[in-house]
Amino acid sequence: MKTTATVPEIARRNGVIRNGSRVVPEEVPIAFSYGGSTHAVMMGTPADLEDFAIGFSLTEGIISSVAEIEEILVLDEGRGLDVQITLADDKEDALRARRRHMAGPVGCGLCGIESIDQAMRIVPNVSTIAMPLSPRDITAAMAGLNSAQPLHAETRAVHGAGFYVPGQGLIAVREDVGRHNALDKLAGAVIRQNGRGADGIVVVTSRISVEMVQKTAILGAAVLVAISAPTALAIRTAEEAGMTLVALTRGEDFEVFARSDRVLVGVVSDVA
Amino acid sequence: MKTTATVPEIARRNGVIRNGSRVVPEEVPIAFSYGGSTHAVMMGTPADLEDFAIGFSLTEGIISSVAEIEEILVLDEGRGLDVQITLADDKEDALRARRRHMAGPVGCGLCGIESIDQAMRIVPNVSTIAMPLSPRDITAAMAGLNSAQPLHAETRAVHGAGFYVPGQGLIAVREDVGRHNALDKLAGAVIRQNGRGADGIVVVTSRISVEMVQKTAILGAAVLVAISAPTALAIRTAEEAGMTLVALTRGEDFEVFARSDRVLVGVVSDVA
Repeated sequence: MKTTATVPEIARRNGVIRNGSRVVPEEVPIAFSYGGSTHAVMMGTPADLEDFAIGFSLTEGIISSVAEIEEILVLDEGRGLDVQITLADDKEDALRARRRHMAGPVGCGLCGIESIDQAMRIVPNVSTIAMPLSPRDITAAMAGLNSAQPLHAETRAVHGAGFYVPGQGLIAVREDVGRHNALDKLAGAVIRQNGRGADGIVVVTSRISVEMVQKTAILGAAVLVAISAPTALAIRTAEEAGMTLVALTRGEDFEVFARSDRVLVGVVSDVA
Repeated sequence: MKTTATVPEIARRNGVIRNGSRVVPEEVPIAFSYGGSTHAVMMGTPADLEDFAIGFSLTEGIISSVAEIEEILVLDEGRGLDVQITLADDKEDALRARRRHMAGPVGCGLCGIESIDQAMRIVPNVSTIAMPLSPRDITAAMAGLNSAQPLHAETRAVHGAGFYVPGQGLIAVREDVGRHNALDKLAGAVIRQNGRGADGIVVVTSRISVEMVQKTAILGAAVLVAISAPTALAIRTAEEAGMTLVALTRGEDFEVFARSDRVLVGVVSDVA
């Protein structure tokens, strides 16, 4: 499937109306099925689907290593993609049991409190990971990400997520119309390369919602850097996990919201 | 629950590092329960929850009018909100039957194709709605939206959705950390005011994914105006529904991607 489409448009610019065209990102339903049963459907960019399957399985807590996946088969259903994932036998049994437990009396519902607790799941603690960073690392990671997004360069309309290792630079970048998907694809790419989350930092073009912190912690990375702002819950979750949150990164400027000890060098002044 | 929090941060700006603080949006798990059984949990802004409950129920196809909801009860569960919705009896039975149908063999799964079809559901056709708009309407709707977002003014980090009626201006604006939530809240606000989707246009601060088109069509509006770009699938879905898509709206400039006949006035030139 294609990742972009060139579409006709009519533009009004400085009061003048013209026919033109624009390259826009594709968006397709992507179903993830385990053992033949669909777990979730996401709207996403039809690229890097094996990375996506592995990263999604990891950040959703279905697997803890690539070895637990036996096979990934992508079926093109025309209107969407069905990604069929075969897990190792014991993992497949565990997932089936978890689903039976999740199923409420009418087949789909969890009770509200249980659902809320699931949304607020405890994330791995990354507080003991050292990862000292200079402001130059932050700037380099973000600048590198911005220049390593072919789909965004074409469309100006997708998100990117990168994994930056100090001294090595960006070792993986993935893109998607959805920011969660981009991060899941990145997580899959990192662990497929036998990369360790603890060896680098995650850098994203979006804002930081709590799910971005959860996914980063599950990948095992101790630092998350974003272009836009964090939510209050994302900050609290990062503090609990011992994760450094850097946000509002613009050129050489940025703001640190949690565990700033990993990043800042030099004297810190109080607000004038 | 509060919608914002003031958090400490350490900012690097022009090479100088300072302690400061920033107002960030809150984000909480919001569970929607029907007849005591949870249907979905969204991360969102804890405001306008009745609008959200009504709008979500509408755009998810659970109700077709406000009258089908008997009661909305918001329970503060500490870590999140459980919004308990009581439907009229026949609607509650219909939802229960639909859930039973949705439940796969292990309790949670739909088969991949069925899930993909559900994601790509056919949306109401709005092609016969006239809604002639001048470029001035587009500009006024977007400018009005930008100046009617108190939460965004405080945080610069949330999405807004507005309903603009030509000749009357914006009659409702809602905000949320999530763009889908903002649109659901708007839909709820409009139908609670006995507004008719066909009488106005929807204007949003985000990009246009297919779900934004689906929700707008279900509200019954024939025009969707956005700051950012549309996806290819959003454009195709809008064309099928007979909806006008206006995107990349900046000041008096914008681009029209579907059913441009409702918007453009004057002569259209080919690309020079």
